[in-house]
Amino acid sequence: MIKKNIRHKQVVVIGSSDDEFNREKSYEIGKYIAKNKWILISGGKGGIMEDVSMGAAEEGGIVIGILPDSDFNSANRFCNIVIPTGIGYARNLTNILSGDVIIAIGGKSGTLSELAYAWQFGKPIICCSFAPGWSEKLSKTVIDDRGSSEIYIADTIEEVFKHLKDILH
Amino acid sequence: MIKKNIRHKQVVVIGSSDDEFNREKSYEIGKYIAKNKWILISGGKGGIMEDVSMGAAEEGGIVIGILPDSDFNSANRFCNIVIPTGIGYARNLTNILSGDVIIAIGGKSGTLSELAYAWQFGKPIICCSFAPGWSEKLSKTVIDDRGSSEIYIADTIEEVFKHLKDILH
Amino acid sequence: MIKKNIRHKQVVVIGSSDDEFNREKSYEIGKYIAKNKWILISGGKGGIMEDVSMGAAEEGGIVIGILPDSDFNSANRFCNIVIPTGIGYARNLTNILSGDVIIAIGGKSGTLSELAYAWQFGKPIICCSFAPGWSEKLSKTVIDDRGSSEIYIADTIEEVFKHLKDILH
Amino acid sequence: MIKKNIRHKQVVVIGSSDDEFNREKSYEIGKYIAKNKWILISGGKGGIMEDVSMGAAEEGGIVIGILPDSDFNSANRFCNIVIPTGIGYARNLTNILSGDVIIAIGGKSGTLSELAYAWQFGKPIICCSFAPGWSEKLSKTVIDDRGSSEIYIADTIEEVFKHLKDILH
Repeated sequence: MIKKNIRHKQVVVIGSSDDEFNREKSYEIGKYIAKNKWILISGGKGGIMEDVSMGAAEEGGIVIGILPDSDFNSANRFCNIVIPTGIGYARNLTNILSGDVIIAIGGKSGTLSELAYAWQFGKPIICCSFAPGWSEKLSKTVIDDRGSSEIYIADTIEEVFKHLKDILH
Repeated sequence: MIKKNIRHKQVVVIGSSDDEFNREKSYEIGKYIAKNKWILISGGKGGIMEDVSMGAAEEGGIVIGILPDSDFNSANRFCNIVIPTGIGYARNLTNILSGDVIIAIGGKSGTLSELAYAWQFGKPIICCSFAPGWSEKLSKTVIDDRGSSEIYIADTIEEVFKHLKDILH
Repeated sequence: MIKKNIRHKQVVVIGSSDDEFNREKSYEIGKYIAKNKWILISGGKGGIMEDVSMGAAEEGGIVIGILPDSDFNSANRFCNIVIPTGIGYARNLTNILSGDVIIAIGGKSGTLSELAYAWQFGKPIICCSFAPGWSEKLSKTVIDDRGSSEIYIADTIEEVFKHLKDILH
Repeated sequence: MIKKNIRHKQVVVIGSSDDEFNREKSYEIGKYIAKNKWILISGGKGGIMEDVSMGAAEEGGIVIGILPDSDFNSANRFCNIVIPTGIGYARNLTNILSGDVIIAIGGKSGTLSELAYAWQFGKPIICCSFAPGWSEKLSKTVIDDRGSSEIYIADTIEEVFKHLKDILH
């Protein structure tokens, strides 16, 4: 008999669908998440989302894509579970709320809306300062005087791993 | 290297959060889903959703709750993955879109909105005619002349199992 | 100085986008709503939604379309205010929550999901029994034992007008 | 007979619910919007949203509040039309999509998610550089290399008025 909550830890990775500069690092981060038996969640599309999903899938991890679309087929092929929200880019909110921790790798306007939501809801955020885009910009600024998010700056992927361990263990 | 889509089959079970009459049957359906290595998805709350989740969790299955709420804690304790959508009862749409097949067990107004969405999006629906509520009512009617859903009537849980096999294999 | 809430009464009309049988009656209902200085709200698309909007617009009323889409141009041309929700058919929930009263004229699966939401949130519903579809079916049934909606059956458009007066005055 | 689309111009004003420093200016901007017969839309809550609504309401304008909540009563008392979306902070997307132009006055994390959506969807944005917060920060930066938004910097409320005229006429 199950006595208590058995929820797995859920790691949300956000970043741009057309990022070409952080493919290898995203892939390694995906592998690390799966090796630790955490659930990988992303927006389910291309770019960073695809690379991180590939890494986690190759390690046999659970890889979830939370899509803006209404159908399964819009997900990248490494997602083994797909949530087609049907709510367009309002899914950025759902994506963020699904994380015990958020990792931001670069990112454009979509990522920025997600970072803003993460801050609003007090989610721990690992900001990859090595990746140009909003993860790097936000590692040097404060969103407002109200948020309760802990911001963890990572200058290398090893620091991403260390922060994940600190936050999730 | 992963060559093709590896998505698992996803079974969404809908029904009322205060149903007391179909607990055992829901539990058995949850067990069956997990035994077949399909993903169980529900609205993550009590009643039917909790019973089906308990069955699947006890078999070691993946049990996902898609919540209207913004936080993980509102899920029943048998969900091992939780998606807190943050979009209130608009999550009924997301819930339905996440299914390769929908099983309706009884159900009140919330279930009815989900059945209407399932019909609109052409999802196969297994209607449990043995459970009083909308699953039983809808097993005797047609929603409109436009929908493309296949409706499978199940008079027993064995028929639920048979329909699942037919649809997902 | 404004001292108290000055919100106008908001009437939501739901029905099918491909209904050809209730055009004239929908148009008359739209006119009546505008004549009474109530706000007309619909899903902003064709069929019933367009006809009721045309009636209200011709009387100089405020006509709001709450769209599933992300852009203004998807609305019918009689809406003078457009809310492109960007959340797909999750907008059915928003549509319902925006009404002080809901009028159902016929309707298919989309209308059914809206009726289910209306019931769940206890909105007064005027069911047009003269229009084939869910408004007619629901005028003869009860959604569940939990809802708090008052259901008003209207066999003629004059009865629609009478119910509106009773509910909104 | 109405021949063509008669949609009014819709101005969305975004800013913090606990801003105390821009009350008078927000109020004046609201008055200006109503004087020009444009529709004022905001998130319908307190702070900037309330002040701008007060200004527009006192001029007899149409004042719409698009709420995260499910009920009318959560709106500030100057909204004469209320859209309770029921989708939580996913309404930030709906809010932005409802504008022909967006005016940002200060703002914290909520405003930042809205600015990110505005950029993503190519909405013209008037950034009040005189108001501390994200409107001021964003007047000095570029969100990404992909967005198509025109950004209009306003150092005074007179410049806000001028930009509105340029964009909407």
